[in-house]
Amino acid sequence: MRPATDTVTPFRRSSATIAPSDALTEQFVAVRRATVALIAPLTVEDCALQSMPDCSPTKWHLAHTSWFFETFILAPNLPDYQFFNPTFRVLFNSYYQIIGEQYSRPRRALLTRPTLEEVLHYRRHVDEQIMRLLDQSARLPDALFSAIVLGLNHEQQHQELILTDIKHLFSFNPLRPVYQARSVESAHSSIALQWCQYAGGVVSIGHDGNGFAFDNEGPTHKVYLQPFQLASRTVTNGEFLAFIEAGGYERPEFWLSDGWNKVRADNWRQPLYWEKSDGIWFSHTLNGFLPLDLHEPVCHVSHYEADAYARFATARLPTEAEWEHAASQLETRGNFVESGRVQPAAVSTKQANKQPHQMFGGTWEWTGSAYLPYPGFKTSAGSLGEYNGKFMSNQMVLRGGSCATPQSHIRASYRNFFPADARWQFSGVRLARDA
Amino acid sequence: MRPATDTVTPFRRSSATIAPSDALTEQFVAVRRATVALIAPLTVEDCALQSMPDCSPTKWHLAHTSWFFETFILAPNLPDYQFFNPTFRVLFNSYYQIIGEQYSRPRRALLTRPTLEEVLHYRRHVDEQIMRLLDQSARLPDALFSAIVLGLNHEQQHQELILTDIKHLFSFNPLRPVYQARSVESAHSSIALQWCQYAGGVVSIGHDGNGFAFDNEGPTHKVYLQPFQLASRTVTNGEFLAFIEAGGYERPEFWLSDGWNKVRADNWRQPLYWEKSDGIWFSHTLNGFLPLDLHEPVCHVSHYEADAYARFATARLPTEAEWEHAASQLETRGNFVESGRVQPAAVSTKQANKQPHQMFGGTWEWTGSAYLPYPGFKTSAGSLGEYNGKFMSNQMVLRGGSCATPQSHIRASYRNFFPADARWQFSGVRLARDA
Amino acid sequence: MRPATDTVTPFRRSSATIAPSDALTEQFVAVRRATVALIAPLTVEDCALQSMPDCSPTKWHLAHTSWFFETFILAPNLPDYQFFNPTFRVLFNSYYQIIGEQYSRPRRALLTRPTLEEVLHYRRHVDEQIMRLLDQSARLPDALFSAIVLGLNHEQQHQELILTDIKHLFSFNPLRPVYQARSVESAHSSIALQWCQYAGGVVSIGHDGNGFAFDNEGPTHKVYLQPFQLASRTVTNGEFLAFIEAGGYERPEFWLSDGWNKVRADNWRQPLYWEKSDGIWFSHTLNGFLPLDLHEPVCHVSHYEADAYARFATARLPTEAEWEHAASQLETRGNFVESGRVQPAAVSTKQANKQPHQMFGGTWEWTGSAYLPYPGFKTSAGSLGEYNGKFMSNQMVLRGGSCATPQSHIRASYRNFFPADARWQFSGVRLARDA
Amino acid sequence: MRPATDTVTPFRRSSATIAPSDALTEQFVAVRRATVALIAPLTVEDCALQSMPDCSPTKWHLAHTSWFFETFILAPNLPDYQFFNPTFRVLFNSYYQIIGEQYSRPRRALLTRPTLEEVLHYRRHVDEQIMRLLDQSARLPDALFSAIVLGLNHEQQHQELILTDIKHLFSFNPLRPVYQARSVESAHSSIALQWCQYAGGVVSIGHDGNGFAFDNEGPTHKVYLQPFQLASRTVTNGEFLAFIEAGGYERPEFWLSDGWNKVRADNWRQPLYWEKSDGIWFSHTLNGFLPLDLHEPVCHVSHYEADAYARFATARLPTEAEWEHAASQLETRGNFVESGRVQPAAVSTKQANKQPHQMFGGTWEWTGSAYLPYPGFKTSAGSLGEYNGKFMSNQMVLRGGSCATPQSHIRASYRNFFPADARWQFSGVRLARDA
Repeated sequence: MRPATDTVTPFRRSSATIAPSDALTEQFVAVRRATVALIAPLTVEDCALQSMPDCSPTKWHLAHTSWFFETFILAPNLPDYQFFNPTFRVLFNSYYQIIGEQYSRPRRALLTRPTLEEVLHYRRHVDEQIMRLLDQSARLPDALFSAIVLGLNHEQQHQELILTDIKHLFSFNPLRPVYQARSVESAHSSIALQWCQYAGGVVSIGHDGNGFAFDNEGPTHKVYLQPFQLASRTVTNGEFLAFIEAGGYERPEFWLSDGWNKVRADNWRQPLYWEKSDGIWFSHTLNGFLPLDLHEPVCHVSHYEADAYARFATARLPTEAEWEHAASQLETRGNFVESGRVQPAAVSTKQANKQPHQMFGGTWEWTGSAYLPYPGFKTSAGSLGEYNGKFMSNQMVLRGGSCATPQSHIRASYRNFFPADARWQFSGVRLARDA
Repeated sequence: MRPATDTVTPFRRSSATIAPSDALTEQFVAVRRATVALIAPLTVEDCALQSMPDCSPTKWHLAHTSWFFETFILAPNLPDYQFFNPTFRVLFNSYYQIIGEQYSRPRRALLTRPTLEEVLHYRRHVDEQIMRLLDQSARLPDALFSAIVLGLNHEQQHQELILTDIKHLFSFNPLRPVYQARSVESAHSSIALQWCQYAGGVVSIGHDGNGFAFDNEGPTHKVYLQPFQLASRTVTNGEFLAFIEAGGYERPEFWLSDGWNKVRADNWRQPLYWEKSDGIWFSHTLNGFLPLDLHEPVCHVSHYEADAYARFATARLPTEAEWEHAASQLETRGNFVESGRVQPAAVSTKQANKQPHQMFGGTWEWTGSAYLPYPGFKTSAGSLGEYNGKFMSNQMVLRGGSCATPQSHIRASYRNFFPADARWQFSGVRLARDA
Repeated sequence: MRPATDTVTPFRRSSATIAPSDALTEQFVAVRRATVALIAPLTVEDCALQSMPDCSPTKWHLAHTSWFFETFILAPNLPDYQFFNPTFRVLFNSYYQIIGEQYSRPRRALLTRPTLEEVLHYRRHVDEQIMRLLDQSARLPDALFSAIVLGLNHEQQHQELILTDIKHLFSFNPLRPVYQARSVESAHSSIALQWCQYAGGVVSIGHDGNGFAFDNEGPTHKVYLQPFQLASRTVTNGEFLAFIEAGGYERPEFWLSDGWNKVRADNWRQPLYWEKSDGIWFSHTLNGFLPLDLHEPVCHVSHYEADAYARFATARLPTEAEWEHAASQLETRGNFVESGRVQPAAVSTKQANKQPHQMFGGTWEWTGSAYLPYPGFKTSAGSLGEYNGKFMSNQMVLRGGSCATPQSHIRASYRNFFPADARWQFSGVRLARDA
Repeated sequence: MRPATDTVTPFRRSSATIAPSDALTEQFVAVRRATVALIAPLTVEDCALQSMPDCSPTKWHLAHTSWFFETFILAPNLPDYQFFNPTFRVLFNSYYQIIGEQYSRPRRALLTRPTLEEVLHYRRHVDEQIMRLLDQSARLPDALFSAIVLGLNHEQQHQELILTDIKHLFSFNPLRPVYQARSVESAHSSIALQWCQYAGGVVSIGHDGNGFAFDNEGPTHKVYLQPFQLASRTVTNGEFLAFIEAGGYERPEFWLSDGWNKVRADNWRQPLYWEKSDGIWFSHTLNGFLPLDLHEPVCHVSHYEADAYARFATARLPTEAEWEHAASQLETRGNFVESGRVQPAAVSTKQANKQPHQMFGGTWEWTGSAYLPYPGFKTSAGSLGEYNGKFMSNQMVLRGGSCATPQSHIRASYRNFFPADARWQFSGVRLARDA
């Protein structure tokens, strides 16, 4: 089981000034609508399946995000609240042990009932009840406000997962279904890779509590960094192809031992979704089965592949502290899901003067840091906080968001995490080296 | 992989007098309609899933049976025939190696496309083309006629599988979906078990070539039977419950070694679909989750359980030769799918004077015979016959059809076969003993 | 778990005239010594290991056969008997559930204690106690006599297993250990294959109760045989090589479906122990790693390979009734373990006038019959008989004994049995066909 | 596969002043003898087995450590060197891909040949050749000197593994073999747990290059520590029992998600080797099956159990930087293997004035740090250095050595590492908390 995909790390600290609840109402409506908008190109069957235990059916994502509001907002705050369907409490509980039993994750696709239509009905019911709650009170209590904001951030995480899980599901179908028919412009060039220099020393990382953040992003704390360099952009498909052509997948000297075992056990020969056909490399994308664009960032590589590539390039992956230190000096802009392009884009020449590029959006960037608690981290009390740190083992941190992430969801301090062999997320590589 | 569920053992011998093709047309229309009629109570999602590799999605059954006509009838016999979709040739090929590649069986549910609607369109296309073929010729060549009859018998096998696979799928859903809301009358009694006597000696078994039969049913051949007795009816739920209450599932002395290993490995404690709730036994049926009817035939037991029960009852399972010898003296009547009752029925007192009862319909009856070729059996030439005997290992023979079998599909010589641990078919127990 | 290797099917019927116990004493001493003689070429380490769960360490075989005498002879018949070591009752129980718990079969090699020396001490203790028992009574009760004879036949089965298990173990060692350094003469020719004709009809098979037999060999009963032919000798390595060179392992049309799945899953390309080195075929034998002798019988093939070869040769495997009917007309002579040659030998020209050859010894011959109870078969009462028929599922019958079988152990009615994919026994192929 | 047990992280930096080679000769003789001394209580069979793929047979450890000297010292430095047996190059290669193929790790026990006697002969051969090499040169080249020192440290790692692997192997034997019959004194008390305070700030950790260290211990580098506290001793069996009795193994709130999955999958209910018999807790030790001493340190717990216990105790595990910072202020003394007591000892009252106690020896202490490269870490060139960092994923760091570790082997900077679910090492728990 790969629980991280459902991870909800609860709201860490609300901002000092709470926004008026009508702004929240607007935000609620927008986020909930954005989720449903994602299923427009999908058939009922597309929404019902999961292609591996790590993935969930779209229908389940739609229901689970509603279950979240029902369980953590409606039930505790509406005294007369009746559960939409008591069985849903088990069916759509991802991993909250204190809430109760959970339906077996690898069997989520077996739940042909409730149907998609019924799940959409469930969503509307939850939306109406949340609206009723928001209407009742001119000024929401802080805890309730925070919980709703958490629910929305949780929903955004599942928006990304809907896209990554559908991409994975479609990859098994010889009919090559297309999620988004829109043509994707090819890049004809990419900027040369440069090294950005950082002096290191004692720096501060971690979220400072202004605005929303998940609790794993804090507390703010000091770390000591040696001088280091960061690559000015992420590694491209063309660069990664050079690694393949140099025998990268056949040479154990580049690989962590666990990675090498995985390469041999699963016969990895290229990134997930790459396929050679008549001597030409193609890639399965949400826009269809397309010729590989050599200037675009390499994507859908595991931590093991990212690390092996770095060794091949006489470099290494950045630590998450290095990454955050660099990123905190930049604006949170990039190739996010709002761009309508759910495929990472090459660096455009327009961006070329401000470096490092592509820190936000495009692909998640594997770091060399294991996902562990920050000094002083405490799990919150209660069912939401119950499992705050429970995923802090055997996972590596990724940073920066991807082309499938909503822009409003990302911060410099944002910590995503996946096991070192995960490849179905939009995960790429940025190099670092000692200065 | 459990390939037997798709098994098409080709047409063995056509009858001497071929029926006029308009009778065939009628039969074709009727059988094809009967398949589609089965999905009336199902949602699009219900049709898309498979609950284990042995099962297939309903949608796949609908497509595969059409693929069968397209591959073995249309393509070879319509010179200008264009395949509906070339990719379907792989997607809906069950196991015909000579025809070409097959899409991975355990992944059939991943094929969210084609959708149910597209598959139904595919069915209509195939139906129209078959009609075109039937219209062309006043008198069909024998081989073509035989192949169509085979296709219809193949389709009937999948009708039964649609029901057994849906029943299995629904069993995982805590919402307890009901396939057929119709109330099922309870039996208030069952006739006492009696023993029917057979003298044995050299007898003849196997299909004699009059009318359709699968090739594994022949040739007719002599066997020597010792004198034996057959139970006058199948074992009831109440009788099987006595076995459970006597510690049947905890006492190795009743079990074959492989069966005992399975009992412990899978923690079997009762037949599939039985569930004790608040001290009362229930059973998952296509009519819902119902209190166990003690007078109905026990069903959904494996060969291992059937054999263990027989040992408990100081009896044994009949051989298939014994069963066929007895059955060939009876009319092919019973509780078939046309009755509208897809749950095996108790023996009614009306039947009580003619014995043995329930030989046809109700539940398939496990025999003590391994599924092996009859003396003189030869596989047919060509792609249809290619795999005639390829399932003749590690399976046990069942006889007589079930409440999910079409009546026109069954004969005394009919040989069904499943691995000894299979439980999701409507499989029950008839006892035999040495005379 | 593959329990058949320990199978002891108890003594079926003693002969009418019981031999005087001093003959039994002699026989006891001879059989027990023969077992220990087998370990002469082995190191302490060789005796301690098992190479797969189906195999057992030599040390375990030595102990288990003694446990058998202790459990079924000494404890019930010597009133004052003290168990050598109470823990051994669990450690060396193979599968007798009524006797009590069994130490996990796949972990038998973990029992570094008792050491080989201690196990040999245990053997001597048991031998002495049996001698004491034999000395006590001028005339043994029939049941006790029968039980001892059974123990000796059981011991002979384990003598064969010691050889097959050591051969398997040595095959994993790149140092290529040799069990028996003696040079094995090569055959320079083999007789041409001829077909022996049998008329069929009602014949009688099964052991008639004169002399020792396992209970699965009876009762004697009638069967009806169609006319058939048996090959005059077993298939040779050279003939099997032709199958390989004709693409036998790549052509699904020759294979049972389960066999084909096994071929692909385990990447079978030749019989077990064959290895091509610099373009020349070699075979791992107990006499070392030797060039393949094309005239010797093919050996270490599974039922699937035997069956596929038969299909390739437009023939089939004989049923066990056919085999026994033919064999019962021959003397029980052949290439048994006493010959000192533990590698099946080619037919010598001396034998060439009397056919079929090689029915006894050389290789076990796979039949096309599943291992099932004979009509009228009843399991014996008590712990020995408890599991008489419990292995009668998912196994195929082999007949005739091998070069690793003691000659005195074999009869025309002897039924050996293994799963269809087993290859580590000395198992070969004799063809049959319809007359 | 768990490669860490063979890990040889090459010599990082030699000390400035190289010791004269006769001191090296003495050390060589002492270390090699210490290895062989460990097998005194073992039988030939004990030395031949492995109880899981993570463990190796004692015989393999004996051979592999000699292979190490042969491969990395003799072959490159003695021009006329003949390999003892060319096949050994594959058989006893643990994981050095550049050296060549490796015999399958889980099958090491299948190598019944070479025998223990032959392996000991191999050891003597290697010893003699090393002596010849040492005699040849009055003054060894630095690189050669370093390589020999590395070989000795490597050998010491395997000395510990011999003990942990034998302990594991013996745990499967109902005869309860005892490695060391010597009676182990019980502790009647333990000191109360106190908290030692550390101020934090920028501190330096990592080995400074004076004397031997593995390369993963360096470079020395600065880290920023928040103020923290360390427990004055490790957690006792009695304290851990309180966790069990509070339902620790049934309450998900204490566990990392991966840990909780493991608890349920493997049905963990207590530390490895604990067993309740007639209401009394016992523990399998190298000294036999003994009543649990409540004052001794808890041992054979996984990282998951250590972490769960810490959460139960409202504390956490120390980071490796915190641990090293504290340890570097202490002498390297403790309950090491030289004490003759291979079972962790309670804190004696004599030690009670100097804190924290038990930092060295007794049990390895799980930290909360993932095993990752230090800033500036570079793998060495060549075959020895080839895999320097290849185990730096999915493992947690342990510190301080155990009762099975040679005292001369340990330093404050020493980094041991195992997967979070490993339990067969002498691994225990020290608590930390934020100050």
